[in-house]
Amino acid sequence: MHLTFIQVLELLGTFAFAVSGATAAINKSYDVIGLLALAFITAIGGGTVRDLLIGATPVAWMTDELSNTAIIAAAIIATLFFSYVKKLNRLLSTFDAIGLGMFTITGINKGVAAGLPLPVCVALGVITGTFGGLLRDVICGEQPILFTREIYAAASLAGGILYIVAGRYSGVTGDIAQSVSVAVIVTIRLVSLRNNWQLPRLRA
Amino acid sequence: MHLTFIQVLELLGTFAFAVSGATAAINKSYDVIGLLALAFITAIGGGTVRDLLIGATPVAWMTDELSNTAIIAAAIIATLFFSYVKKLNRLLSTFDAIGLGMFTITGINKGVAAGLPLPVCVALGVITGTFGGLLRDVICGEQPILFTREIYAAASLAGGILYIVAGRYSGVTGDIAQSVSVAVIVTIRLVSLRNNWQLPRLRA
Amino acid sequence: MHLTFIQVLELLGTFAFAVSGATAAINKSYDVIGLLALAFITAIGGGTVRDLLIGATPVAWMTDELSNTAIIAAAIIATLFFSYVKKLNRLLSTFDAIGLGMFTITGINKGVAAGLPLPVCVALGVITGTFGGLLRDVICGEQPILFTREIYAAASLAGGILYIVAGRYSGVTGDIAQSVSVAVIVTIRLVSLRNNWQLPRLRA
Repeated sequence: MHLTFIQVLELLGTFAFAVSGATAAINKSYDVIGLLALAFITAIGGGTVRDLLIGATPVAWMTDELSNTAIIAAAIIATLFFSYVKKLNRLLSTFDAIGLGMFTITGINKGVAAGLPLPVCVALGVITGTFGGLLRDVICGEQPILFTREIYAAASLAGGILYIVAGRYSGVTGDIAQSVSVAVIVTIRLVSLRNNWQLPRLRA
Repeated sequence: MHLTFIQVLELLGTFAFAVSGATAAINKSYDVIGLLALAFITAIGGGTVRDLLIGATPVAWMTDELSNTAIIAAAIIATLFFSYVKKLNRLLSTFDAIGLGMFTITGINKGVAAGLPLPVCVALGVITGTFGGLLRDVICGEQPILFTREIYAAASLAGGILYIVAGRYSGVTGDIAQSVSVAVIVTIRLVSLRNNWQLPRLRA
Repeated sequence: MHLTFIQVLELLGTFAFAVSGATAAINKSYDVIGLLALAFITAIGGGTVRDLLIGATPVAWMTDELSNTAIIAAAIIATLFFSYVKKLNRLLSTFDAIGLGMFTITGINKGVAAGLPLPVCVALGVITGTFGGLLRDVICGEQPILFTREIYAAASLAGGILYIVAGRYSGVTGDIAQSVSVAVIVTIRLVSLRNNWQLPRLRA
C-alpha cells in the first residue's frame, strides 16, 4: 500500500483527533468501550455532520478503512501508554493542527462539489474541522473548548476564507491554494497556542 | 428586494431565535466565534433536524441567504448592544413566539408534502419550532428550558394539532388555517409567559 | 391485528427504552411534554442515528405506528404509575436487554442490506441498540451510562460480532443466527447486571 503525502497528513490529523477523544474519556473515567466510542466520535464527528447536512450518505467514515484503522490504533495506544502520550502534548497538538487544516479544506471542497454558496462552503469546512471536538465536549458534559477558549475555529475560518478568496479572485486553486491554506491554518493555530492567544470573550 | 408578509414574520422569528442563542453564549462567556455558532445553531437547528429526518438535503439554511443574513445581524447586534438588547426582552419574546408559530406550520407543511402520517407531521412542526433551543441548551450544559419550564412546546403542539384538524375535518386550509394556527401558538405562548403558567412537572 | 413473535419482542424493547427515558425525565422534574419527548428520543434515537448515517430517510420511526403507540403507552404508564413502575425494575431491565438484542441485530441487517463493510455493520448494530440511551443522558446532562458503567454496549458488540462471524464463517444465518445472537446479548447483559460486572475503567 502506497500512501500519498496528503493521505499521511490526514491520517496524522485523524490520529490526533482520536487521541484527544481517548484522553477526554480517560479523564472522565470512561470504560474501554466508552474510550473507543469517544475516540471515533471526536475523529469522525465533523465529517459526519458535514455529510449529513449535504446528504452524502452513507457518511464518509463508513467506507474509509484507513481512517478507522488509525482511530482504533489511537485508542489502543492512548489506553496502553497514557502517561507517555500525555508527554507528547506538543507533537499531538501539531498533528491536531494539521488535522484541523486538512479537514477544513476537505469540507470546503465537498461543499463546492455540491454546488453550495461559497460562504456555506467555508462553514462546512469549519464544521468538518471542529464539530468532532464539539461533540466530544458535549458528550463529556464540558463547556465546548471550541466556543470558549483558544484560536481554533478562528484558524479554520481564516484559512477557509483565504482558500475561497484565493480561488475566486486570484485564480489560485488546486494543490497550491490547498497547501497554502492548510499551512496558514496550522500556523495560526500553533502560534496562538504557544502564545496562549485567545479571542475576546463576551461577558454579561 | 420585496419581502412578503410571511417572509417578514419568519425573519423576525429567526432574528429572535438567533438573539436567544447569542444571549446564551454571552451568559456563558463564549468568545465571538462561539457566539456566532450558537446564534446559528439556535436559529436553524430545528429546521435542520427536520430536514435531516425527512432526507431533505442539502438542509434548508444552506440556500436561505435571507435567514443567514438575519442571524449574522442578530449576532452582531447582540454583541455590540448587549445591555440594550436585554431591555428589549418583551419585544424579543414576541418575535420568538412568532418564530415558534411560523416554524411549526412550516415544519408541518414539509411533513405533509413528504406524505408522512399527520401525527408525525405535527411532531415535525414541534421539532422545527423547538429543537434549535434544545440544541442551544444541551451545548451550553443547561437543563432544556423546553422540557422543564414554560408553555413552549405545548403551544407549538396545540397550534399544530389545530392546523391539522382544521384542514382534515373542517376543510379549512391554506392561508386562513395557517394564520389562525400561528395566531393561536403566539397567543398561548405569550399569555402563558406573561402569567408565568407552567405545565405540571413530574417529581420522583 | 396479528403480531409476530419478533414484533412482540421489539415492542417490549421499545416499551422498556421509552420507560427508561420517561423515568429519567421524572428524575429531572421535566414537565409532561419533556417526558414524552425524552421517552421518544430514548426509544427511537438509536435507530434514527443509524438511518441518518446510511441515508435511509424518512427515518424508520416516522412510519412505524406500532412502535409510536408503544412509546406513548410507556410515557402514560410511567407518568400515572411511577412508584409502581419503579418496583418493576427487574422486569423492565429484562425487556430493556431484549430491546438491546433486537435492535442490535436489526441495525446489523440494515447495514448488510446497504452493502457496508461487516465491521461497520456491527458498529451500526451497537449504535442502534445504544445511542437512544446516549442521547437521553446527554440531554439530561448526565455522564453517559453507556460509556461509564455496566456491560451494555459490550453485550451488544459481543452479540453483533457473533452474528456476523456465524454468518460469514459457519454459514449460520437467518432466524437461527438471529435468535442465538439476541439470546447471547440478553444473557450477557442480564448476567452482568445481576452480578454488577463492569468493564475496566480507565483513570488518568
